[in-house]
Amino acid sequence: MFMHNKKLMYTVRVSEPNPVLASLMLEQFGGPQGELAAAMRYFTQGLADEDPGRKDMLIDIATEELSHLEVIGSIVAMLTKGAKGKLAEGAEETTDLYANITQGNGSHTLSLLYGGGPALVNSAGQLWTGGYIDSIGEPTADLRSNIAAEARAKIIYERLINVTNDPGVKDALGFLMTREVAHQKSFEKALYAIDNNFPPGKLPGKPEYTDKYYNMSQGEGDMRGPWNQGTQWEFVDIKGTDAPVNGGDGNPTVKLAASEMAAVNAVAARTMSKPDADPITGADLGAGPGAGKTKTTTGG
Amino acid sequence: MFMHNKKLMYTVRVSEPNPVLASLMLEQFGGPQGELAAAMRYFTQGLADEDPGRKDMLIDIATEELSHLEVIGSIVAMLTKGAKGKLAEGAEETTDLYANITQGNGSHTLSLLYGGGPALVNSAGQLWTGGYIDSIGEPTADLRSNIAAEARAKIIYERLINVTNDPGVKDALGFLMTREVAHQKSFEKALYAIDNNFPPGKLPGKPEYTDKYYNMSQGEGDMRGPWNQGTQWEFVDIKGTDAPVNGGDGNPTVKLAASEMAAVNAVAARTMSKPDADPITGADLGAGPGAGKTKTTTGG
Amino acid sequence: MFMHNKKLMYTVRVSEPNPVLASLMLEQFGGPQGELAAAMRYFTQGLADEDPGRKDMLIDIATEELSHLEVIGSIVAMLTKGAKGKLAEGAEETTDLYANITQGNGSHTLSLLYGGGPALVNSAGQLWTGGYIDSIGEPTADLRSNIAAEARAKIIYERLINVTNDPGVKDALGFLMTREVAHQKSFEKALYAIDNNFPPGKLPGKPEYTDKYYNMSQGEGDMRGPWNQGTQWEFVDIKGTDAPVNGGDGNPTVKLAASEMAAVNAVAARTMSKPDADPITGADLGAGPGAGKTKTTTGG
Amino acid sequence: MFMHNKKLMYTVRVSEPNPVLASLMLEQFGGPQGELAAAMRYFTQGLADEDPGRKDMLIDIATEELSHLEVIGSIVAMLTKGAKGKLAEGAEETTDLYANITQGNGSHTLSLLYGGGPALVNSAGQLWTGGYIDSIGEPTADLRSNIAAEARAKIIYERLINVTNDPGVKDALGFLMTREVAHQKSFEKALYAIDNNFPPGKLPGKPEYTDKYYNMSQGEGDMRGPWNQGTQWEFVDIKGTDAPVNGGDGNPTVKLAASEMAAVNAVAARTMSKPDADPITGADLGAGPGAGKTKTTTGG
Amino acid sequence: MFMHNKKLMYTVRVSEPNPVLASLMLEQFGGPQGELAAAMRYFTQGLADEDPGRKDMLIDIATEELSHLEVIGSIVAMLTKGAKGKLAEGAEETTDLYANITQGNGSHTLSLLYGGGPALVNSAGQLWTGGYIDSIGEPTADLRSNIAAEARAKIIYERLINVTNDPGVKDALGFLMTREVAHQKSFEKALYAIDNNFPPGKLPGKPEYTDKYYNMSQGEGDMRGPWNQGTQWEFVDIKGTDAPVNGGDGNPTVKLAASEMAAVNAVAARTMSKPDADPITGADLGAGPGAGKTKTTTGG
Amino acid sequence: MFMHNKKLMYTVRVSEPNPVLASLMLEQFGGPQGELAAAMRYFTQGLADEDPGRKDMLIDIATEELSHLEVIGSIVAMLTKGAKGKLAEGAEETTDLYANITQGNGSHTLSLLYGGGPALVNSAGQLWTGGYIDSIGEPTADLRSNIAAEARAKIIYERLINVTNDPGVKDALGFLMTREVAHQKSFEKALYAIDNNFPPGKLPGKPEYTDKYYNMSQGEGDMRGPWNQGTQWEFVDIKGTDAPVNGGDGNPTVKLAASEMAAVNAVAARTMSKPDADPITGADLGAGPGAGKTKTTTGG
Repeated sequence: MFMHNKKLMYTVRVSEPNPVLASLMLEQFGGPQGELAAAMRYFTQGLADEDPGRKDMLIDIATEELSHLEVIGSIVAMLTKGAKGKLAEGAEETTDLYANITQGNGSHTLSLLYGGGPALVNSAGQLWTGGYIDSIGEPTADLRSNIAAEARAKIIYERLINVTNDPGVKDALGFLMTREVAHQKSFEKALYAIDNNFPPGKLPGKPEYTDKYYNMSQGEGDMRGPWNQGTQWEFVDIKGTDAPVNGGDGNPTVKLAASEMAAVNAVAARTMSKPDADPITGADLGAGPGAGKTKTTTGG
Repeated sequence: MFMHNKKLMYTVRVSEPNPVLASLMLEQFGGPQGELAAAMRYFTQGLADEDPGRKDMLIDIATEELSHLEVIGSIVAMLTKGAKGKLAEGAEETTDLYANITQGNGSHTLSLLYGGGPALVNSAGQLWTGGYIDSIGEPTADLRSNIAAEARAKIIYERLINVTNDPGVKDALGFLMTREVAHQKSFEKALYAIDNNFPPGKLPGKPEYTDKYYNMSQGEGDMRGPWNQGTQWEFVDIKGTDAPVNGGDGNPTVKLAASEMAAVNAVAARTMSKPDADPITGADLGAGPGAGKTKTTTGG
Repeated sequence: MFMHNKKLMYTVRVSEPNPVLASLMLEQFGGPQGELAAAMRYFTQGLADEDPGRKDMLIDIATEELSHLEVIGSIVAMLTKGAKGKLAEGAEETTDLYANITQGNGSHTLSLLYGGGPALVNSAGQLWTGGYIDSIGEPTADLRSNIAAEARAKIIYERLINVTNDPGVKDALGFLMTREVAHQKSFEKALYAIDNNFPPGKLPGKPEYTDKYYNMSQGEGDMRGPWNQGTQWEFVDIKGTDAPVNGGDGNPTVKLAASEMAAVNAVAARTMSKPDADPITGADLGAGPGAGKTKTTTGG
Repeated sequence: MFMHNKKLMYTVRVSEPNPVLASLMLEQFGGPQGELAAAMRYFTQGLADEDPGRKDMLIDIATEELSHLEVIGSIVAMLTKGAKGKLAEGAEETTDLYANITQGNGSHTLSLLYGGGPALVNSAGQLWTGGYIDSIGEPTADLRSNIAAEARAKIIYERLINVTNDPGVKDALGFLMTREVAHQKSFEKALYAIDNNFPPGKLPGKPEYTDKYYNMSQGEGDMRGPWNQGTQWEFVDIKGTDAPVNGGDGNPTVKLAASEMAAVNAVAARTMSKPDADPITGADLGAGPGAGKTKTTTGG
Repeated sequence: MFMHNKKLMYTVRVSEPNPVLASLMLEQFGGPQGELAAAMRYFTQGLADEDPGRKDMLIDIATEELSHLEVIGSIVAMLTKGAKGKLAEGAEETTDLYANITQGNGSHTLSLLYGGGPALVNSAGQLWTGGYIDSIGEPTADLRSNIAAEARAKIIYERLINVTNDPGVKDALGFLMTREVAHQKSFEKALYAIDNNFPPGKLPGKPEYTDKYYNMSQGEGDMRGPWNQGTQWEFVDIKGTDAPVNGGDGNPTVKLAASEMAAVNAVAARTMSKPDADPITGADLGAGPGAGKTKTTTGG
Repeated sequence: MFMHNKKLMYTVRVSEPNPVLASLMLEQFGGPQGELAAAMRYFTQGLADEDPGRKDMLIDIATEELSHLEVIGSIVAMLTKGAKGKLAEGAEETTDLYANITQGNGSHTLSLLYGGGPALVNSAGQLWTGGYIDSIGEPTADLRSNIAAEARAKIIYERLINVTNDPGVKDALGFLMTREVAHQKSFEKALYAIDNNFPPGKLPGKPEYTDKYYNMSQGEGDMRGPWNQGTQWEFVDIKGTDAPVNGGDGNPTVKLAASEMAAVNAVAARTMSKPDADPITGADLGAGPGAGKTKTTTGG
């Protein structure tokens, strides 16, 4: 059961209203690396995990992320408080009002649509989607997803700090950024507290394909590094003629029943393209009289 | 520049048509952990990476994932080949046709909508979304995202193998699963070939918050483990009275100009709720005559 | 700041695993009327509301909805616990495993994709979207949105109860359903505790259009009722010739600068359709030799 | 059957082209509170409603909303008419053309993507989604949804009026805003013309939970008001120890078959975290030699 | 201005309720090739078109598509009428009710979520999205989009007819399918009534690239046909060494200012991968003691 | 199998960094008419096509579009290279940094969120969606979709050229635009190489509805043209009384079983609206004492 304490987890002291800055902050409220995505990622994992220690950790951190969501949302609310009031009350001349809110920029997204409150969109107005959550219910994969998610969130906070000059906002962002580092550490510990966590899951790989590196992109710029050389790797310089890697003719096959084959053949016959035709086409018609080879290059 | 060889990377030998199994396979064609998501994750990273070795690796693996996309798509095409023909030609009695395609299940999604071809949806018909791609242009974060993505894809292939009994499909899935293991290894090597990759990015954390573990979820079930105990951790048992962690009163503040304050006050006055009222409400009206405390519990 | 107590708000006692039922339950976990949507609706409103009493209520109820999210998510986790284990361990023959999980139905969505854990999708697998949240930062509108949202959620719970025969699940659903009724009552009281809450917002309507009911759909079946008759209404039986309601010629106009007009004219000239032509078309070509009026009706 | 009259429902007289203003207007064309969402909300309800009077009203208003969609779309078309022509014809020097269209702002969204025509996006370019439609086929809920939707649309029009200084656009927005007020009135009448519309639906609530208000958010700022005090309420000050409200131990339970339990145990064993370990982690590796407690706070 | 006549455009006589069939029908109500998408495609084009004849045609057909939307929506409403009533009233034993509604299939999507009414989702429950609309405001492109859209819609109706055995539904689907054919014809005529409609738009192509066909996919299966041979084509058999087609070294370049170059170099240095290292990785740690080349192939 | 050559298909020479221009270029990277959508449209068709020549062509062009995706993505990477470095390194004073990146415009979308790399969003930040892909597995429809898609892409490139003044970018856009023209030609040839490609598919239309043009939008502005006059058309001036076109009473019907009818009646009775009532409503309550007819026009 969740409970709420009216005090923020971190006291926020915004210097002055700034709707454009508020738009940027939405990135961590309703964006892909934001706090709701983080909270839901860990919460959904925690609900289904059978390991009591890991479950406890997941819910601890999910709860903290919800508290962070409140912090970043409160920053947005403070930054838009002035604009919100004026918009609602029509308190200025129209022209001034629009300029005041947007500061010549695109912040109308936030202020006009959502009335100045924090909204579940990213800094460009894209609606939050459950597609941001990558939990799949296997701890050896999910913990790696969590580690990556914390790393990404840390970087977004770093970028926001780099473009913010309100000291109160910077200070709070620094706290939020730091906590992502701490969470990454916890998830790392939890991952490596599982024996044999690599490869993830239960099935082993096929020995003949596990240690090969296929060089699929070739030309000047081909490089070797620990990701494709060393004792763990067999480097395979793929050529067109090397396909398929398992032999055979490289064509997909399936065995059809006679009635199925008949239907497939009927489709094929109906939609057969005649390779030897040179039909007049809609483009030919559209290119006008005299259309031919050179027509397409002269245009309208 | 991409080029294409007409042979598949892995020869696929499907035993017999099975549209329901095809629906499941779509998970790795147009689903969140599928091959298009993988290819696009690495391709977008590779385009912008300045490090020549890592860029080479990213494009190598992106290209291989596109080749995997072709393999899994060909599996889908084989599994639906019979149904597709019959649907297009109306080759059976209607009732039989529907039963034949769906096998009493929900595979009409695939066969009816998309004509039996592979489509950019997951196994439940959810459209692929760019929200699946979590690249952010910082290698110390992106490589961790790639490691996690490969781990997840490996697991999904494992689950698909567990519910498939077509030996040809199982064989191809085994190849695809194994390559995810190999790719994870490459991304791991590339991550640790970067010095000081933790914390990701450039800014250090705030020392006072980096090593704390906040115990936010409490009660029977609280556990300790390496994620919150040991030399790297200070365990903090958060109580309601512990907020905010940086002192202060826990309220967000902002300094408004006088005109902004006036507008805020006007909104507040206009929308003030009267705490001492006990107004008749729409629910009271709706509950009918005699509505009162007990009414809501007796219903319609 | 949020905190979490390890005990559920409501003890859940599921009778036996049932992945298909779990899929249905997802409707209130990751669906449009579900608990996350409710929690986020009230939470985003509460963050920006200036009225202390209403703000308190919004956060109280948001917190309770998060606790409900945990209850419904735990129901899902219990219902899929058996399937999840078997899927992860490949514990049965493949054919049996698939049948066991799906029960001949479409529940593979839940079990295969998400590993048996609760996911932010609705019962058909549609990803949760921020588009479900309709908060706009004006209490006289938002409270009405909340009233409506609670009414909808109550109904979805009612429907789920009607198709569930697990007594433990039914019991928990009954609790969740009832709380929606209580929340609706709170929001109703809060709305009517605002004086002059209708019309919402600040600007009055235009007197000449406020009380008219336009009868736009006509024919047998036209009805009168309190929504279009009585002292508050002027009933207007719209005919084609009644447009526009404000007079004028019913055409939109704008005054263009000369250079703009020139460009518009250039576009118009370039893309002008010749009404008197009877051009041969791509369809004519496609219909084959002898194509004409009757061709299209004879088909392939 | 729908029919169309070539005259707009309301004659629109735009003063001059303004692509940035056009972008804002899209909010009510393709945004969540816009006219398409309104029309589709009522139309889908009307198709399935059994009550002849309510069905008539729903289709009347749906039809009017479609006519409003045409009005707001025509406003957009007028505001972008100049930019559209220049963009299509490349009629100016490139630099001037870009500046002319965007006015130093973000309106390229509209003009570049959609060629100056109205598009089904909101003012930030978010694609319209069926997730905006909240109809569920139960009149006592749907009518409340409609009331709320009209209230929200009224407010968005009010905000657009507040930031518009083109008198012709303001005039048309005033008409559209006013009609939302009228529609809200109709839906209110229709709701209260249903006896016992509260609680919505058929099932009564559980008496023991209907009238309780759970105080979930606590601390300075706790308030009482008609939403949690008075004859209809029992106020419950929830403490951590109060969970669960129905007694029991607060843990979710399910009875598994032996084979299911075995599989669950196998997963648990395979993914068990060792709480007493202090494993070296990827973060430790990444922090470089000498990594330890203080390392994470000093960064790169 | 739109108006509505209470009679359907086509009298629908459904034989008996069938919720599963209703789910399929949703494909043309809220699916990508459905009637709402069609109506909105033509309506948005019509609003902005300057050509009076084409504008008239676009609105004529948009209005007819709205009338078709009503027809297909009414079919859905009839097919679910029985299930809807039972669901709302809980009129049967629970087990029977669920079986009755779903017929052992996945139709709970429709009946449970949407209460039996038509909803803006496709047959798999995917929400309708504005991404289905491909209008861009240039008639020579938009008319081709319309031709294609009608062709697709015709095929979906054909497939639905092929799997339907209710004669009343089949009859109505036949009408709707036929009208798509008629609409395609109109759009074809309108396209070819524009002189020089190919290439679309105003700018001519670059002569050196207009008529080349690049053979990018090579191997057994390479074919020639009118799309790459004949007087209009120059066939180019691309080899890896043929890139880039415009000469140069095939690397993208940009000229950076000194401060920009310095920043780029700083990033590069910070995130440099050491190609000669062979670092221990997280995967090595995770593979357990003794991890090495063969470890990854033996698994958990 | 795909392979990659490290050289771009077209050498890109960007003059100088310009993040705002980069945002615009994203339209063809992650937008609806962009190169990924094109590649996936043809690739998914090619996988399932039975005709060897057409299949070859589809994969050829899909592969070329992937190569174009790399070209446009490289343009984005070059245009943001300077901003990316500064953002990552915090290389300037904060205020300057923000201004430098955004140039007073909304380009923070690209630079802040995605770190300066190309992302799968359009120029307004909308995530790419599988809804952009309209393949349905029937060549006579899909080829028309391809023709239309190429026409749209050509126009978007034309618009981008019109607002770009970097000569290197313009040059590359010209190449990409031209290739769309060539591809359209190929698809046209392939379509007309199929005999009897109109009507698409197999089923003929119903003769009585194939050649009728329904004039649904009436009034001043009604026009005739080849799309509704000539030997192929019967022009029908629809009046309200003309519905339904197939006779009958225009009401949808279905035959219900007795138990179904009883349930429907129960719902109808429970939710019956009383047309003769004039109930007090929530709006009446909200309008305050003295609310009545004129109240709604005076507002707050």
